[in-house]
Amino acid sequence: MTDKAWVMRTYSGHTSARASNELYRRNLKKGQTGLSIAFDLPTQIGYDPDAPEAAGEVGKVGVPVAHLGHMAELFENIPVGEMNTSMTINATAPWLLACYVAHAEDTGVDPRQLKGTTQNDLVKEYLSRGTYIFPPTASLRLTVDLIAHTVRNVPKWNPINVCSYHLQEAGATPVQEVAYALATAVAVLDAVAASGQVPPEEMPAVVGRISFFVNAGIRFVEETCKMRAFSRLWEEICTRRYGVEDERLRRFRYGVQVNSLGLTEQQPENNLQRIVLEALGVTLSRSARARALQLPAWNEALGLPRPFDQQWSLRIQQVLAYESDLLEYEDIFDGSRVIEEKTAEIADGARRELDEVLELGGAFEAIDELKSRLVASQAERLRRIESGEQTVVGVNAFTDSEPSLLSGAGEAESAILTVDPAVEAELREDVARWRASRDQSAVLAAVDELRRVAVDGGNLMPATIALAHAGGTTGEWAGALREVFGEYRAPTGVAGGAGHRGAELKTAAARARALPGGPPRLLVAKPGLDGHSNGAEQIAVAARDAGFEVVYEGIRSTPARIAASALEEDVDVVGLSILSGSHLELVPDVLGALRSEGVDAPVVVGGIIPEPDRRALVEAGVRAVFTPKDFAIAEILSALVELTEEHRRVSAI
Amino acid sequence: MTDKAWVMRTYSGHTSARASNELYRRNLKKGQTGLSIAFDLPTQIGYDPDAPEAAGEVGKVGVPVAHLGHMAELFENIPVGEMNTSMTINATAPWLLACYVAHAEDTGVDPRQLKGTTQNDLVKEYLSRGTYIFPPTASLRLTVDLIAHTVRNVPKWNPINVCSYHLQEAGATPVQEVAYALATAVAVLDAVAASGQVPPEEMPAVVGRISFFVNAGIRFVEETCKMRAFSRLWEEICTRRYGVEDERLRRFRYGVQVNSLGLTEQQPENNLQRIVLEALGVTLSRSARARALQLPAWNEALGLPRPFDQQWSLRIQQVLAYESDLLEYEDIFDGSRVIEEKTAEIADGARRELDEVLELGGAFEAIDELKSRLVASQAERLRRIESGEQTVVGVNAFTDSEPSLLSGAGEAESAILTVDPAVEAELREDVARWRASRDQSAVLAAVDELRRVAVDGGNLMPATIALAHAGGTTGEWAGALREVFGEYRAPTGVAGGAGHRGAELKTAAARARALPGGPPRLLVAKPGLDGHSNGAEQIAVAARDAGFEVVYEGIRSTPARIAASALEEDVDVVGLSILSGSHLELVPDVLGALRSEGVDAPVVVGGIIPEPDRRALVEAGVRAVFTPKDFAIAEILSALVELTEEHRRVSAI
Repeated sequence: MTDKAWVMRTYSGHTSARASNELYRRNLKKGQTGLSIAFDLPTQIGYDPDAPEAAGEVGKVGVPVAHLGHMAELFENIPVGEMNTSMTINATAPWLLACYVAHAEDTGVDPRQLKGTTQNDLVKEYLSRGTYIFPPTASLRLTVDLIAHTVRNVPKWNPINVCSYHLQEAGATPVQEVAYALATAVAVLDAVAASGQVPPEEMPAVVGRISFFVNAGIRFVEETCKMRAFSRLWEEICTRRYGVEDERLRRFRYGVQVNSLGLTEQQPENNLQRIVLEALGVTLSRSARARALQLPAWNEALGLPRPFDQQWSLRIQQVLAYESDLLEYEDIFDGSRVIEEKTAEIADGARRELDEVLELGGAFEAIDELKSRLVASQAERLRRIESGEQTVVGVNAFTDSEPSLLSGAGEAESAILTVDPAVEAELREDVARWRASRDQSAVLAAVDELRRVAVDGGNLMPATIALAHAGGTTGEWAGALREVFGEYRAPTGVAGGAGHRGAELKTAAARARALPGGPPRLLVAKPGLDGHSNGAEQIAVAARDAGFEVVYEGIRSTPARIAASALEEDVDVVGLSILSGSHLELVPDVLGALRSEGVDAPVVVGGIIPEPDRRALVEAGVRAVFTPKDFAIAEILSALVELTEEHRRVSAI
Repeated sequence: MTDKAWVMRTYSGHTSARASNELYRRNLKKGQTGLSIAFDLPTQIGYDPDAPEAAGEVGKVGVPVAHLGHMAELFENIPVGEMNTSMTINATAPWLLACYVAHAEDTGVDPRQLKGTTQNDLVKEYLSRGTYIFPPTASLRLTVDLIAHTVRNVPKWNPINVCSYHLQEAGATPVQEVAYALATAVAVLDAVAASGQVPPEEMPAVVGRISFFVNAGIRFVEETCKMRAFSRLWEEICTRRYGVEDERLRRFRYGVQVNSLGLTEQQPENNLQRIVLEALGVTLSRSARARALQLPAWNEALGLPRPFDQQWSLRIQQVLAYESDLLEYEDIFDGSRVIEEKTAEIADGARRELDEVLELGGAFEAIDELKSRLVASQAERLRRIESGEQTVVGVNAFTDSEPSLLSGAGEAESAILTVDPAVEAELREDVARWRASRDQSAVLAAVDELRRVAVDGGNLMPATIALAHAGGTTGEWAGALREVFGEYRAPTGVAGGAGHRGAELKTAAARARALPGGPPRLLVAKPGLDGHSNGAEQIAVAARDAGFEVVYEGIRSTPARIAASALEEDVDVVGLSILSGSHLELVPDVLGALRSEGVDAPVVVGGIIPEPDRRALVEAGVRAVFTPKDFAIAEILSALVELTEEHRRVSAI
């Protein structure tokens, strides 16, 4: 019998709830069958648009939702009772779900009808994505509360999407991806059981609501086997660890965003074929087929995609599902010897690595160790590309190319969409108006109640939903919990370098050693809210391996803190990494802070920086800009050595 | 063990040998590992550039090669001894191979080193592609002579590429594709054996040189099974019919051009994902993997692709072969139950249909019957699309779209490449100079010898190679053989209509019946050398099914002949079909001929017509232009009924 097509989504949202609502309705009209909401960083990390921490980030990588009014705008003319809505939201997941539920109630929709997903996986935030707020124990409590609440009150909801996606982006091998994601699922389920919120006889129902969010890379045969191994191990865990007898509750249900890591800035049109092939790993095998799929746009590596680009990615899904014959068959790999062998290999490896994590005390306890392993895997991946062992077309092979006709003719016609800088000011006014219009005492009472439950114990969801109804804001919800739980800084995983690199870094290392005055002292810093730390970590690791002295303090640094570290460590070079598109706002602030501390070390910037922005940064005083095009880390390090030489010469005069 | 990547090619050539040589060298520099030569229609049908029949067609759909000098230009700085060259050449295959061999000899390369392929399959020319010249018996003799010659003298050459490719383009089901291609291979091999040119003990070597050229459509699971079925049946035929014991000589070796039929003019960017998925059917299964692959460009449905577009299609191959892990495994389907079942189904069906063809006397004898079956299959395919049973994204589903950003900004920046009209005049001068510069008596002697062998019997290749060396031209070679063998007109397959259509044509049929003066009389005609007759045939068939009186005389008509038919049959509408891009040259000639015969019937044109050309045609007097966008044949027929009404009203005044 023909299989039903997966839910087709596009990860999208930007500027404002109003603008995103228009985009969503346009996408649904084109045949999208679900929504996937991208929130901006302030919303993800629990700041209102007018918070100082939000400066430069409002509406950039997603939609800002600061209060219930925004949620209503976001879903205007979209029937929430019929929609399947996936929200990429983690630390503030209880709050955004509360706003969604409150909006449903306000529009007469029973929350029991709501279908969708909150990502709600904090382990991978600590390991890779960086939008955590609270320490592990508090994060786990919030995760558990959301699950316990929805299983009873929003029963069609997927309360958690355990993510292997970001583990792959952080460098995980297929075995690591499977093992660490399953370790997270086990940690969460064990915590639900231990919380006493769900009686033992209802635990199978909880297990049945766990879903996963997976990555699919270009090695699509291996990815197919990975998904089959994932299903197999999940079934084992459900049966053996949780005694789930109902087969339907043991099904490995997962959504997918295919790999962004492998998309290239060079010859960006080739990303199109990469995305198509990446979709195969999670669709070819019917018994391990994705329930929902979202594909990035070809220009994801360049910046925010335009509606045309998103449409194209949706059309990839439609051609695969409706023009090809893939859905007409039972599993085309059942019985295949090659696939079975590879599946067993991944399953066996993952079972072993999972056991190791469990012996370390589980995913939350083992975060430091997992982070170090991922950073090492990523370094190994980059080394293979740099050495040419792994081919990346247009990057380390077949670089001879016609000019890309896809990128738009010159600068006038940009190949990406940019967010109007006026948006941030408008949003600041908007929340001020919102606060002025509400019943202030009701809000205060709701915040007090939230704080009380946080301190005294009990499920935090009812108080969270009440705060949403009362008109509370994202910043108020997170602020109250910050007071109770405190904030957290995750491990960076770069402690000792990776140690894998040899030949590639030889020249840079030799030059670094030969420097009079000792090896270069490099400060790697991530200002702003962006938590995509892979780039910063890999530069830090490689620089260590090449003999540099490296200072890296993790994500969400501030201009003042960066300037203070630069001064204190007397660094030769300051390297800033920003992937959220906020470089034009953040970099000048850092430059200003350095100047006022009297630091004259040259500043370099790495990130997704469009060409016109590159020139603006150089004019503002940045000495070099590195983008994903600069895949040869050895060359970046050589440039840093040169800047060090120059800096020391000038300083010596 | 990791599999070797297939030979990567791009089907290309246009304008002149010099321009195509530049393009080939550019493509090789980008990582192409073989060449695939597209010849222009005059070269394919045996006319020199200055022949009246060549007018408007020189350098349009491929490179013109009129003599040995052109072959030398085409391969300047390309070492033929190391290259793997595929030539899409059929009726004139002996001549073009002779030029290639003569060029090799001239540059000191032993023909025994030459690697490559001449297509050399005339059955599919009669059935679908239309570049035949001679009647079946003479065609088969030329095919056999080329095979017998190369097996002994150019032993690494693939003398024939038995084509299922064009059968699929003509509407063949997978079963028909396999059956008819195998029937052709059997007919050719039987003829080689019967010719006495090859002793029985050498027949296995001949069998081992037979290769195939296959199509791969979007239904890639079925296509995978088709390729496995093809391999299986070929192995059976080799063993049972030809007693081939050496396993290596029974291997099903094939090259591929993926499906162009399914590419769309609407939302043309979606062709990219189609091409990627189509590449899967012939690469996924290692035991039935293509030896050589060429992918069309996304804008193939719009016109001649630019270097950027061709590069992109090459990069699809490179990403699949070098970035994905596909080549790392043994066959991923061996043991698969679903794949085995589908493979067996196709193999069983094809075995039955092959037996039917053999009972009809074999492929050459059964051409009329095969043509009718293909036209019926094609009509059924179009009916399914028209009725929505088969989804084509952007055509009959998901038509709501952003403007395509791939097609270039406006008219100034064309999304296709156009051939300079001055080329034809230059080529006419070029052949005149060539003829003036050669030893005329040597050429005449060589032509006489060729004619003598054609009459007396014996292998035609040595005389053909001698003519190439002497400086003969394509037109002289074909002209001499035309004198001896005569010319041929293939069956059109439209005799009785298809009869499958009902509901879709109801409205048009009712209006046609109600016309005073009887049903519309429609002349469908194909002027010029273009042999792509599917469009013309399908209009003819559907019009018959809707009750029209239809006159269709097949391909390669002339303006005078069209005007004479229009007058004699007193038609209401003249429909011209041109897919070679020569509409701007050919249509005005037809309009002129109609006028001078006093025919006032309205003229409509169908084909691959870019927007600016459409306007030019309408200004020249054409009443309507239909492109691949107009997939609803019922609407085309309705338009024809209206034109008939109008024409009769005007005539009645």
